[in-house]
Amino acid sequence: MAVGNVAVPNTVYPIEGIKLSATAAGVRYKNRDDLVVIEIADTATAAVVTTKNAFCAAPVRVLREHFAKASPRYLVTNTGNANAGTGADGKRRAIDICQALATKAGVDISTVLPFSTGVIGEPLNSEAIVAGLDSALTNLAPDNWQAAANGIRTTDTIPKIASQKFDIDNVSYHITGMSKGSGMIRPNMATMLGYVATDANIKADLLQEMLSAINEQSFNRITVDGDTSTNDCCVLIATGTASSDVIDSVAHPHYQPIFDALTDVFIRLAQLIVRDGEGATKFMTVKVTGGKTTQECCDVAYAVAHSPLVKTAFFASDANWGRILAAVGYAGIDDLDTEQVDVYLDDVMICQNGGVAPSYTEEAGKAVMSRSEISIHIDLARGNANDTVYTCDLSYDYVKINADYRS
Amino acid sequence: MAVGNVAVPNTVYPIEGIKLSATAAGVRYKNRDDLVVIEIADTATAAVVTTKNAFCAAPVRVLREHFAKASPRYLVTNTGNANAGTGADGKRRAIDICQALATKAGVDISTVLPFSTGVIGEPLNSEAIVAGLDSALTNLAPDNWQAAANGIRTTDTIPKIASQKFDIDNVSYHITGMSKGSGMIRPNMATMLGYVATDANIKADLLQEMLSAINEQSFNRITVDGDTSTNDCCVLIATGTASSDVIDSVAHPHYQPIFDALTDVFIRLAQLIVRDGEGATKFMTVKVTGGKTTQECCDVAYAVAHSPLVKTAFFASDANWGRILAAVGYAGIDDLDTEQVDVYLDDVMICQNGGVAPSYTEEAGKAVMSRSEISIHIDLARGNANDTVYTCDLSYDYVKINADYRS
Repeated sequence: MAVGNVAVPNTVYPIEGIKLSATAAGVRYKNRDDLVVIEIADTATAAVVTTKNAFCAAPVRVLREHFAKASPRYLVTNTGNANAGTGADGKRRAIDICQALATKAGVDISTVLPFSTGVIGEPLNSEAIVAGLDSALTNLAPDNWQAAANGIRTTDTIPKIASQKFDIDNVSYHITGMSKGSGMIRPNMATMLGYVATDANIKADLLQEMLSAINEQSFNRITVDGDTSTNDCCVLIATGTASSDVIDSVAHPHYQPIFDALTDVFIRLAQLIVRDGEGATKFMTVKVTGGKTTQECCDVAYAVAHSPLVKTAFFASDANWGRILAAVGYAGIDDLDTEQVDVYLDDVMICQNGGVAPSYTEEAGKAVMSRSEISIHIDLARGNANDTVYTCDLSYDYVKINADYRS
Repeated sequence: MAVGNVAVPNTVYPIEGIKLSATAAGVRYKNRDDLVVIEIADTATAAVVTTKNAFCAAPVRVLREHFAKASPRYLVTNTGNANAGTGADGKRRAIDICQALATKAGVDISTVLPFSTGVIGEPLNSEAIVAGLDSALTNLAPDNWQAAANGIRTTDTIPKIASQKFDIDNVSYHITGMSKGSGMIRPNMATMLGYVATDANIKADLLQEMLSAINEQSFNRITVDGDTSTNDCCVLIATGTASSDVIDSVAHPHYQPIFDALTDVFIRLAQLIVRDGEGATKFMTVKVTGGKTTQECCDVAYAVAHSPLVKTAFFASDANWGRILAAVGYAGIDDLDTEQVDVYLDDVMICQNGGVAPSYTEEAGKAVMSRSEISIHIDLARGNANDTVYTCDLSYDYVKINADYRS
């Protein structure tokens, strides 16, 4: 069960210049959409970030080669099989899919980017995907975001969509995005796919900078189990249909509001992954303040967010905050003065100057731990930097889901 | 249920110069031994290693101060409460216990080293411990190793003891040790306490070097859940009663056989912790060969050993070896050529040159995964270094134990 508000927005705005389709190609399971194609207008610019896992999957390798050559016109995604750990055969199959789509659509192969998610280490049934492409291309339509968001799900229990409309100087902008992922989630992407499109008109290199920066505050700040996937990719498309005025620098008056709106959408899509974390019963925001650097705040936040002992205590609604202190202590921060560290759960101060807060009561701790959304705020009191990571608890169901995944 | 051979040795050799006792002091639970005192002859030398967690517990701070001043005569250990995250009050209580013992035994306080293990962040009932000291001192005896090994247990399901006798040049040497710990286990110690004594006659500074080196191959190469405890300590005592000939350099003819025997005992005590890992159903040895450095082999081994996805797959006896590849891929090794990487489960090659091994069959994978003791061998094929880490699987019971720990 996903935690908290995970509803699809009432209105999912189509993005002019983007068409999508979802098709049941039978990659691994029958009668389930597992092939999603996104068509991008040739006016668009695009930005991409990919996994830092050295064992990156075949489609990621192909994607990087294609994206280096051309701006994408088609994104083709399959679920059920990650096409990772599959060697040269896997790469050939990823290319086969791109070539088949390119031929059918009449575009160059380098404008087709492949994405795969699912089980690792098994040969991809690329023939099934190729056989599904005709139907996928026929069904392309601007209002298929929700079908596509369903089509990219693996162990996800919900489709993950965010959508916004806003006006700046009488220009109406729209942003719509979708994501998938609920396990193998960790910084530097995750078993995570994210596709966000806007009709803003943004120069390609600026768009890449925006994606990199926004990604650091969103998809690179979530963790379910600390496992970095071989397949993580995130794509940001700007179709340019909202206005002919090109946004080509941070000085453009529309830049910052668009950046902020995109950030909202990305954080929402990232949080949805954690809210749907495998077996999650609680959504936790780990905020670290008072650090010397953002990096050390990030390190502390991740140490806490990764700790199985912290995560099982939250699952049990047990204010065993000592486990939080222990995780702060092994985060590897140089010269940490533990006697300066304060810790809060929501508004309850549990630890002051490295020990139990005098005002703390077990009852107050129990009350806050009974909530399904809890913030953990750690103040290191040694600087002005801060950072935030989103995570969930570790439950029986996490083990069940991951022990049963292939069966 | 602990995994594999975890039996207490048929013969547990007393070590001349060491006496032990276990007492029910009522620190947290009634009618359960929770106070263990070890008396050390004044002829002995001692070596200590402690946790690297910045939030180290009050007893660890006191221990470090005392050990810097004097060679220990008494080790006093309580379970039920880790006296960690307890600030100045915690430190005062640790000192109170040491002072009470020192007064009763007629020794200087700096010769008493305190150890605590149990729940973090709650005030220690030091009064109960002090009240139990008379009984603890009265009951000291050389043959109480098993009672003491039981007395230091927390969530441990078994007492952990190793014992050896061996002769070199007509000198009979004995080594006996005990350990505790089953969760919060990770490099740089763990919620782990280890006490090993030998009757060898070893100079103090050499003994410290030996402990540091042996620790790197044993207690610092195990992981259950990746959490580094605030309380980990390991003590090595050499009482010197076996011979008047002092071993004061690595050139001494007895040095290497004693070093090797101590290493065997330490690895056994470390493995017992993993075999008794919280909820463990499988014991896994992760061996990485062909690395450029020992550190990178260690990093890869720990990435695999920490991965919840790998650990749940082993719990499920599922040869989902792609998760192993994914963990190797995010271990952070520079310029890793994944197309050189081979992976074996016991004698079954599952991955060759970064892809599925041609000889691999699902049946062979299933057969090896059905075993309760499995080695994962990863060959990076880029150098001559190697390293080994011991771990266990991640089961429902791990979550249950850690979600219920305080209730």
